[in-house]
Amino acid sequence: MKIAVIGGSGYIGGELIRLLLQHPHATLAQATSTRYAGRSLAVAHPNLRGQTDLTFVQPEAVEPCDALFLALPHGTAMQTLSRWLELAPLVIDLSADFRLRDAADYTAYYGGPHPAAEWLSRSVPGIPELNRDQLRDARLIAVPGCMANAAILALYPLVAAGLLQQPVIVDARTGSSGSGAEPNLSSHHAERSGVMRVFKPLGHRHTAEIRQICWVPIYMTATAVEAVRGVQVIAHVTLPAPMTEKEIWSLYRRRYTAEPFIRLVKQRTGVYRLPEPKILSGTNFCDVGFALDADGQHLVVIAALDNLVKGGAGNAIQCLNIVHGWDERAGLRFAGLHPV
Amino acid sequence: MKIAVIGGSGYIGGELIRLLLQHPHATLAQATSTRYAGRSLAVAHPNLRGQTDLTFVQPEAVEPCDALFLALPHGTAMQTLSRWLELAPLVIDLSADFRLRDAADYTAYYGGPHPAAEWLSRSVPGIPELNRDQLRDARLIAVPGCMANAAILALYPLVAAGLLQQPVIVDARTGSSGSGAEPNLSSHHAERSGVMRVFKPLGHRHTAEIRQICWVPIYMTATAVEAVRGVQVIAHVTLPAPMTEKEIWSLYRRRYTAEPFIRLVKQRTGVYRLPEPKILSGTNFCDVGFALDADGQHLVVIAALDNLVKGGAGNAIQCLNIVHGWDERAGLRFAGLHPV
Amino acid sequence: MKIAVIGGSGYIGGELIRLLLQHPHATLAQATSTRYAGRSLAVAHPNLRGQTDLTFVQPEAVEPCDALFLALPHGTAMQTLSRWLELAPLVIDLSADFRLRDAADYTAYYGGPHPAAEWLSRSVPGIPELNRDQLRDARLIAVPGCMANAAILALYPLVAAGLLQQPVIVDARTGSSGSGAEPNLSSHHAERSGVMRVFKPLGHRHTAEIRQICWVPIYMTATAVEAVRGVQVIAHVTLPAPMTEKEIWSLYRRRYTAEPFIRLVKQRTGVYRLPEPKILSGTNFCDVGFALDADGQHLVVIAALDNLVKGGAGNAIQCLNIVHGWDERAGLRFAGLHPV
Amino acid sequence: MKIAVIGGSGYIGGELIRLLLQHPHATLAQATSTRYAGRSLAVAHPNLRGQTDLTFVQPEAVEPCDALFLALPHGTAMQTLSRWLELAPLVIDLSADFRLRDAADYTAYYGGPHPAAEWLSRSVPGIPELNRDQLRDARLIAVPGCMANAAILALYPLVAAGLLQQPVIVDARTGSSGSGAEPNLSSHHAERSGVMRVFKPLGHRHTAEIRQICWVPIYMTATAVEAVRGVQVIAHVTLPAPMTEKEIWSLYRRRYTAEPFIRLVKQRTGVYRLPEPKILSGTNFCDVGFALDADGQHLVVIAALDNLVKGGAGNAIQCLNIVHGWDERAGLRFAGLHPV
Repeated sequence: MKIAVIGGSGYIGGELIRLLLQHPHATLAQATSTRYAGRSLAVAHPNLRGQTDLTFVQPEAVEPCDALFLALPHGTAMQTLSRWLELAPLVIDLSADFRLRDAADYTAYYGGPHPAAEWLSRSVPGIPELNRDQLRDARLIAVPGCMANAAILALYPLVAAGLLQQPVIVDARTGSSGSGAEPNLSSHHAERSGVMRVFKPLGHRHTAEIRQICWVPIYMTATAVEAVRGVQVIAHVTLPAPMTEKEIWSLYRRRYTAEPFIRLVKQRTGVYRLPEPKILSGTNFCDVGFALDADGQHLVVIAALDNLVKGGAGNAIQCLNIVHGWDERAGLRFAGLHPV
Repeated sequence: MKIAVIGGSGYIGGELIRLLLQHPHATLAQATSTRYAGRSLAVAHPNLRGQTDLTFVQPEAVEPCDALFLALPHGTAMQTLSRWLELAPLVIDLSADFRLRDAADYTAYYGGPHPAAEWLSRSVPGIPELNRDQLRDARLIAVPGCMANAAILALYPLVAAGLLQQPVIVDARTGSSGSGAEPNLSSHHAERSGVMRVFKPLGHRHTAEIRQICWVPIYMTATAVEAVRGVQVIAHVTLPAPMTEKEIWSLYRRRYTAEPFIRLVKQRTGVYRLPEPKILSGTNFCDVGFALDADGQHLVVIAALDNLVKGGAGNAIQCLNIVHGWDERAGLRFAGLHPV
Repeated sequence: MKIAVIGGSGYIGGELIRLLLQHPHATLAQATSTRYAGRSLAVAHPNLRGQTDLTFVQPEAVEPCDALFLALPHGTAMQTLSRWLELAPLVIDLSADFRLRDAADYTAYYGGPHPAAEWLSRSVPGIPELNRDQLRDARLIAVPGCMANAAILALYPLVAAGLLQQPVIVDARTGSSGSGAEPNLSSHHAERSGVMRVFKPLGHRHTAEIRQICWVPIYMTATAVEAVRGVQVIAHVTLPAPMTEKEIWSLYRRRYTAEPFIRLVKQRTGVYRLPEPKILSGTNFCDVGFALDADGQHLVVIAALDNLVKGGAGNAIQCLNIVHGWDERAGLRFAGLHPV
Repeated sequence: MKIAVIGGSGYIGGELIRLLLQHPHATLAQATSTRYAGRSLAVAHPNLRGQTDLTFVQPEAVEPCDALFLALPHGTAMQTLSRWLELAPLVIDLSADFRLRDAADYTAYYGGPHPAAEWLSRSVPGIPELNRDQLRDARLIAVPGCMANAAILALYPLVAAGLLQQPVIVDARTGSSGSGAEPNLSSHHAERSGVMRVFKPLGHRHTAEIRQICWVPIYMTATAVEAVRGVQVIAHVTLPAPMTEKEIWSLYRRRYTAEPFIRLVKQRTGVYRLPEPKILSGTNFCDVGFALDADGQHLVVIAALDNLVKGGAGNAIQCLNIVHGWDERAGLRFAGLHPV
């Protein structure tokens, strides 16, 4: 099983490489980088020192393989898709290019027409917890955005139960790795350190992804907080009628009990009573928890994940595992660190 | 003008001391600490090295003075109020003990009956932007909680305009100094560092303070994030009818334009486009900004402040300045640092 | 291969558990905690949620096993050693109790006489890079302190080559997890965050460990910096005569080229040109690099590791692997994260 | 007293502006920025919102004034000095351009010949603690580098007493603001956060500044640690003969007791026993402390300061105060925050 990573020098690309190098069934054959072609993978990812002898190759040098991950800037995969589809029977895209079903949404959220719009409906959303069966036969998988994935996993059990009928307010917090590997003033350490920066108070692009699963208005505020990895979403839901905590519990448990990477976290005591991203760094878990107001109708659902893993590369590997019929946990068994 | 600080070894107490030592009109006469009595103020607050020769005294040693700040643990001021009222014509309490008007709210949020309930209605809320006139004649001032103050200042222009009619969802984030100077496992650096810890998903005590100003249901989620100082609140409001950004702007500008410590922050470009706590460290500012959805009805209001200053000690000094007819900015002119 | 961890609720204990749960040849049979006995391991270590059904047991409940790790507070293992030696053919101690060869050093650095001094010479230092052969037959292994291990691995090639003849100045920096899981004022987040705290300018206990390998005076300054995990040492060495960079390189390469967990890091370009602890979090690597002054005699050697892994639990597992003849990398293959 | 700041958009420039805006005797007349000319000062420094109505001007628009601060990139002031000298009777340069006495040192440390070498000997080092008298008549003041200033203030009492005879080893740690306001990969938050990055193991340019005061070889290692502001140096000194702590104390006390911005910090107990940069943020203090080995000859001196204040802008203002015969503390009375 030979795998290529297109766009290997970014943060998502680096995670794909890291995970593939230790995957029991897959082999990383090639990783591309225009900037670093010919140089060791460790030049971009110092954690890979001594882990591999591979060097980056130019995108043009990619050879046919069994699966191909696209970790390119938004807008690139849609321009070059046909080439990648020729090279591999399975293409897993980690950009935003094929996440929205509706071409009009692209125009609204990303601007301009979509050059490969016919693939919007043919691609399968890379959300194993929702689309496991469709994923098995996928030709093109579109891995969701990090905040979108967390929000969708937080809300889906309510959607499936018909309980999501009112607008949802989502508060999303993210670490700095979510904005990628390109330096700019807003990522400059002296400016970024210690912030609670509301960088998108409304209208974040991931909102469109959540809405197409939830079918109600989503008002999402996105804040950059002090962390490198980690996404957390807090979703405020108004239930159609009062419910008990136990009912919510059993709803979530039913939906997620067999999921290898969803853990329900809701403890009465201890320091980590609700989902906390920091202990998920490097793992493929999405932890989900909730609190219900005394009125029984105002429900707060919390989800946390590592934006580069369950919010990106790990989720993509999980999809690969599904397509190939491997144990979904293959290559994704890292349990996370504490303290960290 | 002799001032005493009761409870001088905690974080709010330390800020009171710092601010009073540089106040142009007030003089710090005494600061109490049971633990550190007889020792230099710098033993608890290393920033005060070389700033004063005062030592902490026992609470019993407090002498009559012109004003007295209470920076005691919640539940203490209410037990000992009569003593402090005898010692000074003005008592400014920074605990939660006199923040709620309704004794029943105490039982609900803090447990047990209130031993000085007659003062609940006689105390004046320490919110200059709302109660300036009442403050001038105050005998007992109850300074609001840090998150409550931020939320109230974010929402009050809407309340005053009759626009707050629907439940409000508040997302509050706080640095670690907000939980005080007593170590415990949840404040242990290895556990607290880098968190996005939802420590109170619903039912936080400050909710009661906000509600008694706003008169609508408040659903507030409180999260501890990586920072020492700083509080930020994001309030989601549904307006009764669509409005324009310009209308919101003029509403807030009218209400706050003459306020020395409220700044409206809403820029189209730059890194600090909306209120950011980190650049407010040490200052008495509350920065307020907002975003309005394309639907004209979903309004997100953001407020930021330093929890120990505008969320505590600085706000209390501002109240003192008002009572004494001094320039409200006296002793509170520090502009804040950038970068930091 | 049944393994027990004595003192499983601390940070080193937690890392032992984490690593053993994913070890291909060893099985965690029991983990003790007086405080948490009867409760899930995840109560102390939230990263273990869903990883195991084990609960903590009381120390008295430990049953005979194949190897036993002691992760107890300093001074405890020396009091109870005989009990543990009865329970297992191999005891690996991670405390300071058996690290020094000379009982007089204990008195000097830790105070009081050593109650099991006969084991000081019989224990084998848990430093695979120096003692691999002795470790194979060890009955009691004493894993070195985190800063000591980093300094020893930085300096040993010079010692072995007879080049360490002058006093060495060591600057050691450490994250907060190095001081353990017990909260106190100096670990309180608001006090510990962002510090450069010289907590031991001279006379740190790990100095004694380094000196017994190096045989020259060691002046070590220990500073707590902002990080949870990570130790870095900077050792300033005066060589007996001028050398070239190439000679130093080949000296280190010869000594360490076959070592699975030592990487020489010295690059001309890039952001991570010298050993950096942050990319080693969770890994068992000790990265070593150096710089040589233009005078050819002043040599700066830099080493970095994760204090809880190569500076503790991981190093102990590596010793276990050696004793049992397994691949030394078994259970220790995590490559580390970037960015993080 | 009209003052201009040339290079007002950088971090040192921003601090000069902040301090001048609250200075009791000086008035900020102009601040230049090529990039932001015509726009509010707050566009670069969000802490200045509401503090001033000034806008940045082009460097060409600078008018004659009473004093002029140069906060330009290294290499710029030396090219344009004559112009600034024409505009003001006092020029205070905060770049490296006039810090070294010896033109050959420029070639060695900065490359190329010095275009205004005649001013190297005519400029006065901006170190009030060493050169107060010369500063009074200065025409051009060269403010030292942040790490250099800390090291010089740590070592000078020993130099003056003739006790510095052996090479000194200096370990210098710095926050991210020290590398300026221009983003690059090494300052990118995801790469810079949480590091212990030895960015200059030997040969740092500030070494030359220290050496010209100390006259012994200086081996300095510079490490970037997690902080925005703050510099700390640890200097290891071998005394010519054994001394007692008391003797060292009295040596330092004699030299520094009258200094308004040097505090000796050496406590037996407490969390802040030795100089700690974090509590100095925004202040003009340099805290100095030490530890003496049991051998009486190995002395560790520690100094801490805010790199942008006592390591830059504040120190420059102190020089201005001296030249004009004002209280040296004018405009520099901020005591610092705790906790922070």
